[in-house]
Amino acid sequence: MSAPEDDFNRIDKLLNPEAVAVVGASNTKGKVGNIIFEGLRRSKARLYAVNPHEEVISGHKSYAQIEDLPGRVDVAVITVRAEQAVDIAEQCGRKAIDNLIIVAGGFSEAGEPGKVLEARLKAIPAGYGSRILGPNSLGVFVPENSFDTIFVEHGDRALSEGGGIAFISQSGSVGVEALGLASNTGFPLRAFIGLGNKIDLGELDFLTYFGADHKTDCIALYVENVEQGRRFLEEARQVSRRKPVIALKAGRTPTGASAVSSHTGKLAGSDRVVSGAFRQYGIQRAFDDEELCDAAKTLSYLPPATGNRVAVITGAGGFGVMCADYIETDHPRARLRMAELSDRTLARIREKAPPFASCHNPVDLTAAMTNEMFVHALRALLRDDEVDVVICITFFAPHAITDTLIDLMARAIRNSGKPVIVFTEYGPFTDTYLKEFYKKGMIGFPSLTRTVRAARFLVERGRILTALKGQS
Amino acid sequence: MSAPEDDFNRIDKLLNPEAVAVVGASNTKGKVGNIIFEGLRRSKARLYAVNPHEEVISGHKSYAQIEDLPGRVDVAVITVRAEQAVDIAEQCGRKAIDNLIIVAGGFSEAGEPGKVLEARLKAIPAGYGSRILGPNSLGVFVPENSFDTIFVEHGDRALSEGGGIAFISQSGSVGVEALGLASNTGFPLRAFIGLGNKIDLGELDFLTYFGADHKTDCIALYVENVEQGRRFLEEARQVSRRKPVIALKAGRTPTGASAVSSHTGKLAGSDRVVSGAFRQYGIQRAFDDEELCDAAKTLSYLPPATGNRVAVITGAGGFGVMCADYIETDHPRARLRMAELSDRTLARIREKAPPFASCHNPVDLTAAMTNEMFVHALRALLRDDEVDVVICITFFAPHAITDTLIDLMARAIRNSGKPVIVFTEYGPFTDTYLKEFYKKGMIGFPSLTRTVRAARFLVERGRILTALKGQS
Repeated sequence: MSAPEDDFNRIDKLLNPEAVAVVGASNTKGKVGNIIFEGLRRSKARLYAVNPHEEVISGHKSYAQIEDLPGRVDVAVITVRAEQAVDIAEQCGRKAIDNLIIVAGGFSEAGEPGKVLEARLKAIPAGYGSRILGPNSLGVFVPENSFDTIFVEHGDRALSEGGGIAFISQSGSVGVEALGLASNTGFPLRAFIGLGNKIDLGELDFLTYFGADHKTDCIALYVENVEQGRRFLEEARQVSRRKPVIALKAGRTPTGASAVSSHTGKLAGSDRVVSGAFRQYGIQRAFDDEELCDAAKTLSYLPPATGNRVAVITGAGGFGVMCADYIETDHPRARLRMAELSDRTLARIREKAPPFASCHNPVDLTAAMTNEMFVHALRALLRDDEVDVVICITFFAPHAITDTLIDLMARAIRNSGKPVIVFTEYGPFTDTYLKEFYKKGMIGFPSLTRTVRAARFLVERGRILTALKGQS
Repeated sequence: MSAPEDDFNRIDKLLNPEAVAVVGASNTKGKVGNIIFEGLRRSKARLYAVNPHEEVISGHKSYAQIEDLPGRVDVAVITVRAEQAVDIAEQCGRKAIDNLIIVAGGFSEAGEPGKVLEARLKAIPAGYGSRILGPNSLGVFVPENSFDTIFVEHGDRALSEGGGIAFISQSGSVGVEALGLASNTGFPLRAFIGLGNKIDLGELDFLTYFGADHKTDCIALYVENVEQGRRFLEEARQVSRRKPVIALKAGRTPTGASAVSSHTGKLAGSDRVVSGAFRQYGIQRAFDDEELCDAAKTLSYLPPATGNRVAVITGAGGFGVMCADYIETDHPRARLRMAELSDRTLARIREKAPPFASCHNPVDLTAAMTNEMFVHALRALLRDDEVDVVICITFFAPHAITDTLIDLMARAIRNSGKPVIVFTEYGPFTDTYLKEFYKKGMIGFPSLTRTVRAARFLVERGRILTALKGQS
């Protein structure tokens, strides 16, 4: 077994290669080998096309085979079909290419002939030292260096400017959803990893890598089965002392588990065992793709909550009522409660509130509120020691509320050390507003449920940190 | 007390007036009296401006006072401040105007002086026979005749082409959210009613009206307190034999209930009592604004489910697994289960499925699927007697899936009599796709949780219909 630094450096090369070969690169629009090759032209890596049937691909010389490549290659992306992919992978092994990304499906998930192919593939790491991501992998995407091998449409790349979330997904489509989110409302992505069939590199390798990577501040996983469960949990406990780890473990129910078996050829573990183990080892659990993405975004961008007392500001009484209802409804993740505001805070809010406003929590400034009133109340709540999280119900419908409010809020929140979550209602301009909030360092959601749920993740994270401190 | 037909006709005039006066109409952009007057110019009603300080408003003669109006007026929209609104309302009463919509806040929700004003307002219906909507009402909107008195931005009116949902909301902002939804992804709105402080017309009046209105196929209510609780429940039971009634009752928790009191000056009832009563009288319950809108859209557009067996088709295995998990997770609204497909259905699906597909439920056609394969499987599921609801996980990322799929699906579903719900993932083009589905008579959501929740509403509705049949 190799030393931890070697493993770190190897995966580092997979994500930041100097030279990449695309086997099956193509000039035919829409073909996987074309999409990947075109996508990689934006990266800083030296790029090689391998395809015996072409002379030139997008202005690059096309090599007939791997062994013809003139220089050292860090990553080979193998885009050909399963039957050919195994031979190509062996050629890559002989060429001493460190990392192979195998895109094709049709292996163990596809019945007996696929299983035979997969067994051959599995022998390559031991035989040649090459590490394999996949097969059946959606690829990897690292915004920082524009290294993108994802072969399906995944939103506007320009909006994925990078951030702290490592998103590791056994399912390709769940990963694409996170990337769609990124382009709609902003998502601070450090890297996306499509695990696929995990015959070699798996969630444990990437958990370890991103746990040590100082540019990663949050790790989100979608998994259908966990390999090396005990080591995974131990590693997660170590990592979650430093940064949040959130996992969606699909296959929770009998039919879900049997669908995992059809999908991946693997058996899913008992859900109750998973749930207990996750809790004990500091892993936060999500139950669908939207929740996973929301939680990752929140935990990456906002500080953990030091307590469970939530204050709400709104100009729309009805939403204040519903929000209080949601906050006080019991939930297994974390029990929240509505903060009781100190007399001093109440007096401060009243200084600038409209005469009819209700200054108790939820603070209802009514439709007569202005930007200044809103931010004044927000500052008062941020200064109150009885408040751990603030939820801002921020509409842009009242006449006196303008887009400047976003800047004013950002300024008020900066350096407060407290998490603030914004709800802005679902309408034609919502995503634009949410993206504006995001660009200014704030997180917002277009649904009250999702907003309150985000607060629960922050409170849960605060508790995990306290619990881990108590452990050796 | 007036006869039911009189009440029906009176509200009918409120929503389909021949002549409308706007008191406080204004030429000043951004003023409430300007927004409402401009909005009403699109309607078919004869329009009068009332404002003593103007000669002409948007090309219409401005009358100094109500009594100067030359003809009969069905609805007066009173946009002036609370202090003046009461006098104006009395003048409207003397002029025998049937219906008054009072927009101003600053009544009972705003402390003692407001309570005095509200008491005076309350005397008007008995004194003059005029009915009052409000005060503090967001107004009404009836897409069919472009009658729109809503005074805040509420999305693209052109997209609210009309449909069967009567949306009755005590809170203005919750109503605006539903209208935002309408313009983003389609929402079949029959009418929106902003109840406001409900000093006269309330949820019971509109429940009765829309219950009898043959163009309404679903009634959605947001309420913070219910007046005349017993009569409301009895009426709801009658109405829900004919069409679904969904209610969001806010103020469920102690702090939520106390926030209701600040917001409306009313006390909210015990939540457990509400919950039990709703269930007994056939009212379906929603817990936030998004759920209320989703449920209304689903119940208006799709037939109820005759059982709880759900089939899923996908090209993305991971989403199939998560969807099965969600379906089989217990939920108080309705227990769902994954349908067991008959051998005949399995054989039919296999006829055209890709070789690696998993044809059991969830049916995973893999990324190799085509439009034709998808629709072939959908038809097989719709024909299977063991299937009550179909969920289609429909991505447009696979190469062979094109926009034509939407037409093919619509054709397959038409006349099947079974509800089909679509999930399409959240990305930059999602809303456009969801609107396309909507235009072709289908309902879709950008979240798996919301998709499965929609199925639960249909199953719950099926059970309510069965239960009501059993009652006298």
